Amino acid sequence: MAKPILLYTSLCLLLVLFNGCLATQTSRQQQRFNQCQMDRLDALEPNHRIEAEAGVIESWDPNDQQFQCVGVAVVRRTIEPNGLLLPQYASAPQLIYIERGYGIFGAVLPGCPNTYQESQQQQQQREGQQRDQHQKIRNFRQGDIIALPAGVAHWLYNDGDSEVVALSLLDTNNQANQLDQNPRHFYLAGNPEDEFQLQGRSPRGQRRQQQQGQGRRERGHQQQQGQGKNLFSGFRTEDLADAFNVNENTIRNLQGFQEDRKNIVKVKGRLQVARPPRSREERERLERQEREQEREDEREPRESHRGGRDNGIEETLCTLRLRENIHDPSRADIYNPQAGRISTLNSHNLPVLRWLQLSAEFGRLQRDAIYVPHWNRNAHSVIYVVKGRAQVQVVDDFGQTVFQDELQQHQILSVPQNFAVVKRASSSEGFEWVAFKTNDNAQISPLAGQTSVLRAIPADVLANAFQLSREDVSELKSNLEQQEITIVTSSRSSSQRRAIA
Amino acid sequence: MAKPILLYTSLCLLLVLFNGCLATQTSRQQQRFNQCQMDRLDALEPNHRIEAEAGVIESWDPNDQQFQCVGVAVVRRTIEPNGLLLPQYASAPQLIYIERGYGIFGAVLPGCPNTYQESQQQQQQREGQQRDQHQKIRNFRQGDIIALPAGVAHWLYNDGDSEVVALSLLDTNNQANQLDQNPRHFYLAGNPEDEFQLQGRSPRGQRRQQQQGQGRRERGHQQQQGQGKNLFSGFRTEDLADAFNVNENTIRNLQGFQEDRKNIVKVKGRLQVARPPRSREERERLERQEREQEREDEREPRESHRGGRDNGIEETLCTLRLRENIHDPSRADIYNPQAGRISTLNSHNLPVLRWLQLSAEFGRLQRDAIYVPHWNRNAHSVIYVVKGRAQVQVVDDFGQTVFQDELQQHQILSVPQNFAVVKRASSSEGFEWVAFKTNDNAQISPLAGQTSVLRAIPADVLANAFQLSREDVSELKSNLEQQEITIVTSSRSSSQRRAIA
Amino acid sequence: MAKPILLYTSLCLLLVLFNGCLATQTSRQQQRFNQCQMDRLDALEPNHRIEAEAGVIESWDPNDQQFQCVGVAVVRRTIEPNGLLLPQYASAPQLIYIERGYGIFGAVLPGCPNTYQESQQQQQQREGQQRDQHQKIRNFRQGDIIALPAGVAHWLYNDGDSEVVALSLLDTNNQANQLDQNPRHFYLAGNPEDEFQLQGRSPRGQRRQQQQGQGRRERGHQQQQGQGKNLFSGFRTEDLADAFNVNENTIRNLQGFQEDRKNIVKVKGRLQVARPPRSREERERLERQEREQEREDEREPRESHRGGRDNGIEETLCTLRLRENIHDPSRADIYNPQAGRISTLNSHNLPVLRWLQLSAEFGRLQRDAIYVPHWNRNAHSVIYVVKGRAQVQVVDDFGQTVFQDELQQHQILSVPQNFAVVKRASSSEGFEWVAFKTNDNAQISPLAGQTSVLRAIPADVLANAFQLSREDVSELKSNLEQQEITIVTSSRSSSQRRAIA
Repeated sequence: MAKPILLYTSLCLLLVLFNGCLATQTSRQQQRFNQCQMDRLDALEPNHRIEAEAGVIESWDPNDQQFQCVGVAVVRRTIEPNGLLLPQYASAPQLIYIERGYGIFGAVLPGCPNTYQESQQQQQQREGQQRDQHQKIRNFRQGDIIALPAGVAHWLYNDGDSEVVALSLLDTNNQANQLDQNPRHFYLAGNPEDEFQLQGRSPRGQRRQQQQGQGRRERGHQQQQGQGKNLFSGFRTEDLADAFNVNENTIRNLQGFQEDRKNIVKVKGRLQVARPPRSREERERLERQEREQEREDEREPRESHRGGRDNGIEETLCTLRLRENIHDPSRADIYNPQAGRISTLNSHNLPVLRWLQLSAEFGRLQRDAIYVPHWNRNAHSVIYVVKGRAQVQVVDDFGQTVFQDELQQHQILSVPQNFAVVKRASSSEGFEWVAFKTNDNAQISPLAGQTSVLRAIPADVLANAFQLSREDVSELKSNLEQQEITIVTSSRSSSQRRAIA
Repeated sequence: MAKPILLYTSLCLLLVLFNGCLATQTSRQQQRFNQCQMDRLDALEPNHRIEAEAGVIESWDPNDQQFQCVGVAVVRRTIEPNGLLLPQYASAPQLIYIERGYGIFGAVLPGCPNTYQESQQQQQQREGQQRDQHQKIRNFRQGDIIALPAGVAHWLYNDGDSEVVALSLLDTNNQANQLDQNPRHFYLAGNPEDEFQLQGRSPRGQRRQQQQGQGRRERGHQQQQGQGKNLFSGFRTEDLADAFNVNENTIRNLQGFQEDRKNIVKVKGRLQVARPPRSREERERLERQEREQEREDEREPRESHRGGRDNGIEETLCTLRLRENIHDPSRADIYNPQAGRISTLNSHNLPVLRWLQLSAEFGRLQRDAIYVPHWNRNAHSVIYVVKGRAQVQVVDDFGQTVFQDELQQHQILSVPQNFAVVKRASSSEGFEWVAFKTNDNAQISPLAGQTSVLRAIPADVLANAFQLSREDVSELKSNLEQQEITIVTSSRSSSQRRAIA
Repeated sequence: MAKPILLYTSLCLLLVLFNGCLATQTSRQQQRFNQCQMDRLDALEPNHRIEAEAGVIESWDPNDQQFQCVGVAVVRRTIEPNGLLLPQYASAPQLIYIERGYGIFGAVLPGCPNTYQESQQQQQQREGQQRDQHQKIRNFRQGDIIALPAGVAHWLYNDGDSEVVALSLLDTNNQANQLDQNPRHFYLAGNPEDEFQLQGRSPRGQRRQQQQGQGRRERGHQQQQGQGKNLFSGFRTEDLADAFNVNENTIRNLQGFQEDRKNIVKVKGRLQVARPPRSREERERLERQEREQEREDEREPRESHRGGRDNGIEETLCTLRLRENIHDPSRADIYNPQAGRISTLNSHNLPVLRWLQLSAEFGRLQRDAIYVPHWNRNAHSVIYVVKGRAQVQVVDDFGQTVFQDELQQHQILSVPQNFAVVKRASSSEGFEWVAFKTNDNAQISPLAGQTSVLRAIPADVLANAFQLSREDVSELKSNLEQQEITIVTSSRSSSQRRAIA
């Protein structure tokens, strides 16, 4: 009878998601054109940058037509060693891809107990104080995908010796986001800057003035809130003092009026939190492992080792697994030493994705290897280039080429649902990417390779559809049969290709 | 094996909801701004009023930006004793909150049998007529929430001695509403006025004229339909006579052409319907109970009594429980004699809410008590003030105060998903409200109180985020630990507070 | 424990659907009016026509306000004997109704094996070639509904002696369509024309020129893609040659640059595919059956025979049943020899509809029979007239007649959710229609007939609501009780009616 109970849980989880469909918005650009009626796509780079005390935040323009079509927003945060991304939440579910580095993060699941407790030793260092308790702390490292439901507050801390680079995709078009399609971060602390320069949003000072001009009715004497930008700063200091039962000085710190460190701050000393000990050895092992993994991508793979991944049983709400490593070559779902590998993260291997209705793919192509032309059956795909370069072409329902270019490191390209796409690694180091997909079990339909849709269609249908002889079709199908699956080695090297061309 | 079957039922119910996402609309105001990009919220009062024969209908402007953002519409009906709200349905799921009075209602669930039958005695009073049969009749009383799926016809009758006040929230942005976001009532009887003055809708006469000007092609001679506004009035009298197999006089009554009693009509004598007898004693007990409940809110509570609530097994489609009392102090989920109480209605205690993707909360704050600052994780919250007044502040993702004012009886304030809100009762009688939430299991994340998110974050993260000393953080967390949950007593009374300020 | 497993499967299927809500679009017309704020509906005929080599494609204007409100697009394809509708897929789930003829179709479900294999005999006819393998081939015949999820490639072949007429409804407003509301077909072969003349879409040549004007950055020498319009044509020939590992001549055929046969092509000889033998006798039996069925509609029905339908167990993903015959009189859900019959197709009898959130109804009214006034509780209804004519009236929430006209063969009328509608067959051959509904378990609430909502309402409520005497109400309810269910015979013939009028 375990299953029905699990099911019931799943059902409950499911229900959380179905709370009406998000209100869609109409920005000025969209009035004249349909959202996914795009003549061309562009490889996009971040166009907005915030320099914080201990890191940098770069965001992609959420009003770009391709993001409006696929309904997502993307931001990349670089966190320096000992830097802390302040606690915040977003109104959209998100996936965070850890491109580099490692650290710890905390996600506050409402209603879950504070199960982590400081050691007595730590307590003794601070005499007279209570032992600190808090919710579970989780590690993250290069290659992790962290999945966060809408409205769940979280913070990230870089406890390594090198930069952490974390790319967040916010699925603003998700049903769990009941606000409009604008990406929104709600910070609990600090005096953060807006991570997206949103259109139609007048600067803060200006708006406040307008309001006062409009004569907002206020009881008692007018009290001017400070210039903080976190959640606390909007409340009246004395009201918070009452609600928290602490003095107003402490509240003013919560409100962050004097803050100028912005979204990512430097921790004094090292961050002391209660968590299971992770020895220096283990840390070194992790770093070694990551280095090896990188090297490994350029040579023949060794035997797989699994180690350290969860067993999938721990699926209640409070112990929900929120992260999974997608880099690990040993978990590749498609693997071909000559061509590369693809790992998929979906709700089958990370069940929280059922809530989020998102999934992800990490791929690596060796030089000149081809990710066969295919379409995403039931999802959009947002590609972020981790390493290297690739020649990419995208084709729409008119058979029109909407993208044909080299996709370069740190660029983003959105491939809308059902559009066809092909990638060929064009740099000597190959091509590595992570693709975020707007369905928790995204499917692809390959045109070429062993799983090609053409193989599933009778030879005589192909012969008549394409005006080919039965011999040509037979050769085509038999060539496909002998190909690899999804990622194939090119019959000619790109240098040959150039010579021929 | 009972569970799987129940589950299967739930699954089927679920499926009813997923029928594509409602088409969104763009009114003229929205073209320039994003729907939830609001500089300020306002406490709203009804701005449209209909005087009917036996009651009054007041509605809030559905085109107000806050309603456009949260995707709901609200109407309040006051039904005089012996008044009947005519049978009608809406294209959106709705929750009806009974603010005052008691009565009976009928909801017509398609495909369900007519299980209530008149007594022989009743029949004998009307010789020669058949015994009347109809679907289940349900009682309602002050404090009930009635849940109605989209498209389900229903009527309400006031069989008490005082006014019934019923507030309906229509979740127009719900997936079950496949029409646009305009709230729509379809009346089966009478000659009702439109309960919402909808924008972009020309007056009826004018439209009819336009149509004729446009030369609607009609076969046979032109027959002018009358000026009724119920569903029957739009059909041709003779066609209905055919379809119903009754004479045209009866049909003309169905069509309501001669009607002028509007949406709520006076019943001649008392309404005679088949239903289990409810004795005068019971009625008096109910009234007594309500009076006691009101008194009780101002004094120390007595021991709880449950009595009369359903056991949750009766969950098939036709016997689905459609109402639940949310006032009853004995069902409070959070209770603190000094601060107040909160009762929550969700799909766990009223399963039909799974269909509707809605839930509700009833709360009462004693004078100067505070509902701690919090955000709604996965829902909008639409607050209706039942009694008293409260100082309310709402803060958006910029840390900007979008509302800071006293919320008064019968006003409505919408708090969008993830916006932070705090309430403090400011009148001597305290503050009572009902909040409708656009998720069947809405969750809050409190900033203060024993369940504060700050307690779930490690002390050192807070110290660094807020630039507080470890001592201050330790004091903050330990104060929070000693606080009540969600509703707390203020450390100072508001009179003190004013003096200080 | 079988049930939980089935449930789990259902749950997984369900999850496929919830991938965020489709982005809605705003066309120029909609800016001023609300999408379902319609003063009148029109009976629509196709307004766009493509003449292909072996058939004709006609489409209805997807920008008509009624289609914008209900969120669907409709196209009808007439395929000549031996004609092949080229392999293609749509970004929206669809139902295909086979109005006439019979044939075979293939749907490529990604990840499913190629389970059909040519016989040795067939192989021997083509020496040296491999035995052809492909995915399951399915038959279709007059009266079938074929259900296809979004993004699933499929082809249709007419292997009969008469025309195949196939009407496709694309549910563009479905959650599974993550693109905007424009209907889109992605062809895998040929040089198809766009089946819908989409607004805001400039002709292909023009767009291409613009792009070049805008200086699309391209590496290496500029290679001009050809003028094909299938998915392959947008890719570079040499890249495809690489990806498919075949010569460029074959690729050029895939790209269809030289094609002029358009969307439906003539097969040389007869199409040879691997499939279980269907003998001439069986084919003749099918044709006979269809002819009998037609005759039968005009005379008294004989005893029912079921034969040949599936048992509902074969519900895994790859063996999912995709079609069901809805014409078969023996499967009628409502049947009345004098009035007609109605058959319903929903997720209970065709489980794939759960994915699609669509259902269908086939109905036949005898002359002067009436489909009682009713509303669709939870779905839009898109009516396509198969045969005959009917007087139809549609009434909105204002009691306003938005449609009152004769609906004729091959016209389409959309009845939005909750609008009331009545149909009366007005031609001597009766009236036959298929209605597509945007919910996998669409429900109706009849106003008249034995299941009338009026019967479910107490007599005294009706008496007071309609100002009728108890005697009149009693007569009304008792007349309803004696009526048929949903489809009733008129009390007067239409000729009588005309005379009276």
